[in-house]
Amino acid sequence: MADTNAKLDFPPRISVEEVEEGLLLMPIFDERGLISCITTDIETGDVLMLGYMNRDALALTIETGEAHYWSRSRNILWHKGATSGLVQKVIEMRVDDDQDAVWLKVSVAGSGASCHVGYKSCFYRAIDLPNVSLRFVEASKTFDPLEVYGDVPNPTQL
Amino acid sequence: MADTNAKLDFPPRISVEEVEEGLLLMPIFDERGLISCITTDIETGDVLMLGYMNRDALALTIETGEAHYWSRSRNILWHKGATSGLVQKVIEMRVDDDQDAVWLKVSVAGSGASCHVGYKSCFYRAIDLPNVSLRFVEASKTFDPLEVYGDVPNPTQL
Repeated sequence: MADTNAKLDFPPRISVEEVEEGLLLMPIFDERGLISCITTDIETGDVLMLGYMNRDALALTIETGEAHYWSRSRNILWHKGATSGLVQKVIEMRVDDDQDAVWLKVSVAGSGASCHVGYKSCFYRAIDLPNVSLRFVEASKTFDPLEVYGDVPNPTQL
Repeated sequence: MADTNAKLDFPPRISVEEVEEGLLLMPIFDERGLISCITTDIETGDVLMLGYMNRDALALTIETGEAHYWSRSRNILWHKGATSGLVQKVIEMRVDDDQDAVWLKVSVAGSGASCHVGYKSCFYRAIDLPNVSLRFVEASKTFDPLEVYGDVPNPTQL
């Protein structure tokens, strides 16, 4: 859970030119009320995760300088690191052309991990061709998920 | 448009452990039949775009080594670069923990641009705090969209 008293509001989207070429943040949220967020590590440049934000999560990320997401599996506003201590401090933030996605460059506290399975990046497996088999690119987990998350349900759905 | 004769099939998702810790690619597609794709530049490490792939687009990307997406604005399978010449050659491909997102590291042909507005990256604007104004991080466009795309409808929606 996280503080939901976000104060920031966003201006309405009036024209495509303003959205694509303007200097105002006017994000668009999809039918679920969410915007996509790509999070990369400021040091390695690696993609850490692809998350989602609702209006409050985006506003709180901007206001606090720490990444907040909307957890689709738990249906709650999620201050990343509140449980694990692995807070993501925002170093730089970008928005894309049609403003339906943001990119956070972050510095991760503690072990530097951002993945609930225990790896630094959620993208810990490469797809090798031509046999389309997966290969682990991280040698080992940085923490034991059971120890950190206890009996919190696993967000992975089948 | 692109060839839709993708041959690759993906195994069923039997267990969370297999999805998270296994060596088989078993992607999950959302209610629209899409998986998210983060595309980064192999040279700069910059995020170029966030795209979407349906089953055919993912299979064709793997089979051809060139990025294919599903265009949500045009509702067609989209061989990136077919119109603009700015083909994205896949250098490395990764999948995330729950296999609902992929990450492509690509080398872009021609001017190296991936954004329909004319910039290299779709994320050509940073969000400056605390006033939440946007700042262009790319000095200029690499091409004139009107010249390259002509009267193809702009994908940005209000």
